[in-house]
This record gives sequence, structure tokens and C-alpha cells, in this order.
Amino acid sequence: MNRDAIGVFDSGLGGLTCVRELGRILPHENIIYFGDTARIPYGTRSRETVLRYAKEDIAFLRRHPVKMIVAACGTVSSMLGLNSPVDDIPFTGVVYPAAAAACNLTKNGRVGVIGTPATIRSASYETAVHTINESVDVTVMACPLFVHLVEYGYTDRNNAITRLAAEEYLAPIRSAGVDTLIMGCTHYPIIRDIIADVMGEGVTLISAGEEAAKFAKRCLEQQDLLTDSEEPGHNVYYVSDSVSMFRENARHFLEDAARGQVFSSRL
Amino acid sequence: MNRDAIGVFDSGLGGLTCVRELGRILPHENIIYFGDTARIPYGTRSRETVLRYAKEDIAFLRRHPVKMIVAACGTVSSMLGLNSPVDDIPFTGVVYPAAAAACNLTKNGRVGVIGTPATIRSASYETAVHTINESVDVTVMACPLFVHLVEYGYTDRNNAITRLAAEEYLAPIRSAGVDTLIMGCTHYPIIRDIIADVMGEGVTLISAGEEAAKFAKRCLEQQDLLTDSEEPGHNVYYVSDSVSMFRENARHFLEDAARGQVFSSRL
Repeated sequence: MNRDAIGVFDSGLGGLTCVRELGRILPHENIIYFGDTARIPYGTRSRETVLRYAKEDIAFLRRHPVKMIVAACGTVSSMLGLNSPVDDIPFTGVVYPAAAAACNLTKNGRVGVIGTPATIRSASYETAVHTINESVDVTVMACPLFVHLVEYGYTDRNNAITRLAAEEYLAPIRSAGVDTLIMGCTHYPIIRDIIADVMGEGVTLISAGEEAAKFAKRCLEQQDLLTDSEEPGHNVYYVSDSVSMFRENARHFLEDAARGQVFSSRL
Repeated sequence: MNRDAIGVFDSGLGGLTCVRELGRILPHENIIYFGDTARIPYGTRSRETVLRYAKEDIAFLRRHPVKMIVAACGTVSSMLGLNSPVDDIPFTGVVYPAAAAACNLTKNGRVGVIGTPATIRSASYETAVHTINESVDVTVMACPLFVHLVEYGYTDRNNAITRLAAEEYLAPIRSAGVDTLIMGCTHYPIIRDIIADVMGEGVTLISAGEEAAKFAKRCLEQQDLLTDSEEPGHNVYYVSDSVSMFRENARHFLEDAARGQVFSSRL
């Protein structure tokens, strides 16, 4: 039993898709969120820079009492691979939980992955899928604009620019005949409708952030670290850029984040 | 007479449009460039964060012997307004030089401005134009995707996504009947062809980076700070993210930048 918070971080607001799922499946847990909005995006930067930023994000979260860290960022998770950046509390990224879910769900053995350029360049999802099941076929595609389209709120199902970008990015994944698609960046579920429309029926979409939340729950259960509180959990949000810009955009991700306690904090 | 370099900085590669013009009109001057590629974009961040980043960029340039600073970034220039961040050497941003050029060139007294969200929110170009000529009508539009479309190399004249974004962003500017359009972010000249196609004939496009270069030349002449060297000037480029990513993208902006001396440097 442990009443400390779960620490979650992302380059920006994408990680809130993980926070939302944590709130659903672990309603009594407290969550501390850090979004590095002053330095987003991570997915177009070099490996060295992403790892440096991740280290600083984790150091920020650890200034608070946290019992687990979730890197709710596909890019950071990809750069880390199987390395945990902390050695005294549990940690998870989003790549292995999402890869495991895809291997469980695919029926035809063909899985697609979309992510940031850094994620795709790292081949992290292929590595994870093939570690779990080497006979699964993986088709990947970098979607550099998606994170911006989401952060700018170009998320309406009929948005012409987002739809055109989705059609271009997803064409090779469709051609590969996948029945399961990993949305490997935690921003992408916000445009799930458009991605689903373009992929067509019969393709299961996997949210990397949601799978990471489910994995975190199992991890805390196994290590007997769940809270014994019966009160609703309390979420606190920190961002490295201004609070007002966070509030403006966060409602696309999570109603609570736009209303709750939000602080701006320099790293 | 002064043989020190001209210091130029931008959030990323956009400032190279200013460097190219400086090389054309001041071929004997040395240039030190800093592109904050580890933190690009600036144009979607808060005023406080942009000003903090600009201060750090200038401090970096001033570790080298420089005789003038050019903020070749529409967002930084807009946040600074008429304030110079240095008091011992000349400084210019891009806003006033571009506004002055537009006021000189417009025949029908209607000027359009496109820029980043932070630039447009600041009303910097309206302020500058109306300080120069209060009877000029100004129509503005934020184009948040353009900087990414350029940095990702979606710059081909026929690129469907960039063309669609341009059509959406420029529609209100076209409706206003402007005969002069300020490209208020130094990234935009890279997609000048697409912008020109959408605006149609009879609209003059002004590159804020090029106007800043011309202004810098006049400034150095007036203060007798031009070099007396007759050798070709030497350019050195610094970026805050990796050199390889810079080389990959810089060729869109400036052939020399992709080949020349490039260093990665933490701020």
C-alpha cells in the first residue's frame, strides 16, 4: 500500500490520453503530470537531446513524492528502449505495453505503427513486437505533422488538412493489409476518428497511452503499491510554458486538466 | 571599420534566408549564426518563454566577437517590439525593416501580414506599419503549420498539404485585396512559390529576413562598421540540436550552410 502519486510526463499534452485512462481504471490514485510545453515537440529532435530532456522531466517529477514514473511519450519511450531511467521505483514507457497489446489483438499477424520521426527512426516498435512475437509483420510510418495538428486543435473529424495528411501518411500502412494499428505517439488518439475513417473498418486502433496506463496498473498491483484511499484521486498538472496556453488546449484531451490545478514551472 | 562578425539567430533554420541575403549584399562580412533547433518552434510559445530563449540566444552569440546582432526570427522580433536587447552594439529584428518596405511598396494602401501565432497575437506588424504610415490598412493571419511544413521539407511547389494549408490561411488576406504581403516569419520564403501561386499576380511578397539584411547593411554603413577585408566572408553555424539534422534540412535554405562549418552547442 502506498499513497504517493503516479508521476506522468510528456513533451506536451499527449500524455493526458494516458492520464485519462489512469483516472478511469485507478480512480483513487493521485497523479502528478509534467508537460514540457516550452520545448515540444520531442519527435523531431536528436536522440541525445530527447534523452537529455527526458532526464530533466524525470528529475522534475522526482522532486515530488512519486511511487512510479510513466513516460507517456512515444518518442522518449523509443529512445529509452528497455532501459529504465530510474532504479528505485517502477517505470514504464508506452512502447512495450502497446506492442504487447498489438501482438495479442492481431489475427492476421500484420501490425502497423505510426509515430514521430524519432520514434520511427529508432525502430523501437519493431524491436518490441519482435521480442514478443517474431512472426508478426510490422509496417511503420512517421507522421511528423500529426503532433502539431493535434496541439493546434486541428482535430475536427472534417478538418481538411488533417484528413489529407492522414490519407498521405496512412496509405502505405493500408496497402500492407494490417488489421491492427498502434498509434505510437500519445497525441494521436485525439484524431482517432480521422485515423479510423482513413484506415476503414476491420482495423483495430491501439492507443499507446492507454496501454501504458493499463500496464502501470498491473505493475502497481503486482508490487502492492496501489493506494488504500477510497477518496477520488487528485491530479496536479505542471507545464514548462504558460498555464493559459495549457488550459486553452488541454480540454481537447481531458476536461479535468483544463479545470484542475495547473502550475507553470521552469525545469 | 570593423572586422568582427555579424551575429544572426533564429529558432531554427528560417534565419538562413537572412544570412543568404547578407552574403549577397555584404560578401566580405563574416557571419556567426545560431539556430535554436533543440527548442524550435518559438511561435507557439508564450511571450515570457520566447523572451527568455532570445536572451539565451543573444548571450551565446556574444561569447564570440560580434559587431551587430540580427534577430532573424519574426517571433522574437515581435516580442521585443522597439526594445533592443543590447545597448553597446547595433541590433535589428525583422519587423520594422519589413513594415517599412511594405509601406514603400504598397500602391493601394492595403498590406497583408502572415506570421506565427505569437507574432500575430502581438500585433507587432500593425504597430510598426502604423508607426510608419497610419493610413495603411493591415490584414493579418496566423499560419501555425507553415514553420513545420518548411522544417520538414514539405516545400515542393506541388505539395498538396502545404498548398491546402496556404489556401486556407491566405483566403482572408486575398479577400482584403492587399497588393503587398509581408512574409513575417523567416521560414516562409522557402514556400514563396506556393504563397505566390495562391495570392495570384499583382501581389508583391516581402521577405522579412531579406529586409532585415538590407537594414543591417545600412546600419553598419551609417555607423562605419563595415569590414575593410576584400576576402570572401566566412560563415560559421551553430545549432542547439544535432549537426546532422541541420545539414539534412539546411540545403533547402542555403547551399553553403549544408556544406560549411557547423557545430552543435548547448546554450
